[in-house]
Amino acid sequence: MFHRGELSLHTKGRGTYDITRDVTAIVSASGARVGLATAFVHHTSASLIVCENADPDVRRDLDAFFARLVPDGDRIFSHDAEGPDDMPAHVRTVLTQTSIGIPIAGRRLDLGTWQGLYLWEHRHAGHARRVTVSIVGE
Amino acid sequence: MFHRGELSLHTKGRGTYDITRDVTAIVSASGARVGLATAFVHHTSASLIVCENADPDVRRDLDAFFARLVPDGDRIFSHDAEGPDDMPAHVRTVLTQTSIGIPIAGRRLDLGTWQGLYLWEHRHAGHARRVTVSIVGE
Amino acid sequence: MFHRGELSLHTKGRGTYDITRDVTAIVSASGARVGLATAFVHHTSASLIVCENADPDVRRDLDAFFARLVPDGDRIFSHDAEGPDDMPAHVRTVLTQTSIGIPIAGRRLDLGTWQGLYLWEHRHAGHARRVTVSIVGE
Repeated sequence: MFHRGELSLHTKGRGTYDITRDVTAIVSASGARVGLATAFVHHTSASLIVCENADPDVRRDLDAFFARLVPDGDRIFSHDAEGPDDMPAHVRTVLTQTSIGIPIAGRRLDLGTWQGLYLWEHRHAGHARRVTVSIVGE
Repeated sequence: MFHRGELSLHTKGRGTYDITRDVTAIVSASGARVGLATAFVHHTSASLIVCENADPDVRRDLDAFFARLVPDGDRIFSHDAEGPDDMPAHVRTVLTQTSIGIPIAGRRLDLGTWQGLYLWEHRHAGHARRVTVSIVGE
Repeated sequence: MFHRGELSLHTKGRGTYDITRDVTAIVSASGARVGLATAFVHHTSASLIVCENADPDVRRDLDAFFARLVPDGDRIFSHDAEGPDDMPAHVRTVLTQTSIGIPIAGRRLDLGTWQGLYLWEHRHAGHARRVTVSIVGE
């Protein structure tokens, strides 16, 4: 079987947004008992990560690390049509993931105990973001 | 259904090469209406990214950023059998993607408006590169 | 067809562990002639990479580079519940891959000549790690 689901979210600016529950709902709707759910984000300034879901400090530290690694307004960048966070958002996206494939078992996402799936908004302004989940299985 | 296609390209050295059209042709040949196309690059010194496809400055800036982040000839590297860009090419590959899964809808790659799929050659010399596209769907 | 396999390994601390043979065994057990094998690691302080498999210096250099890029005990991190390598392990995971999709051809993993699939343990202490391989094909 193949099943396709979509989710949309409106971010409030740079940071991580937990989409585990939304993707889980798509997996349930698919009826798949076992399989693979591949999430894909339709943007180049937001990305996907699987990250520790217990301590919010982890995602704050992640963002602090990436803000230092890829500084807004870095003079190495010539592309700044949308501002100082434009090109850094593209770099941060390329350094993380545009798609992630997660196993399905027992009719649910088979994530590790401490794993959550997050959309990472890399722009400072809020944006409407779209994620497609492609499910294969039986 | 499962369908497999391959594409080969000869790069002219370090930089990004748009393979969106070639992958789209494989999707068309597969006959899939909806599904998932997973691209995989068979090398450890070239990688795949989904990136902004409008302003070529974006890919130039990306390359400038990565050249600073992972400098050619960095003395931290002992592996330099093929020259100063040998080990940086492996690091740049690991920092980006070896495989990316993209949804198929309406018999075509369901990329966002500004998304293109690129092979990123990390070596300064041109190389023959091979990408396999695995399609599941219906 | 859909097939699911799992592998477990006990790491001996930070470093790369070749899992190509274990994943190949799961592919064989699946009976798939052609298809796609998607490996997924169920942790947020260990990740997956496809890397050069000939010269062990490559993986040593990779680790040296990442140890410099994401220093243990970096004061930018507030999350250090499990020690100075706790948050760096999460960052290193996010900078690499949690899932990789590899084509199957001729009943085996269709990797390039120099490609191996590695689990990268990012913690200094040894850990029990779990990887699921999801196979679709025919």
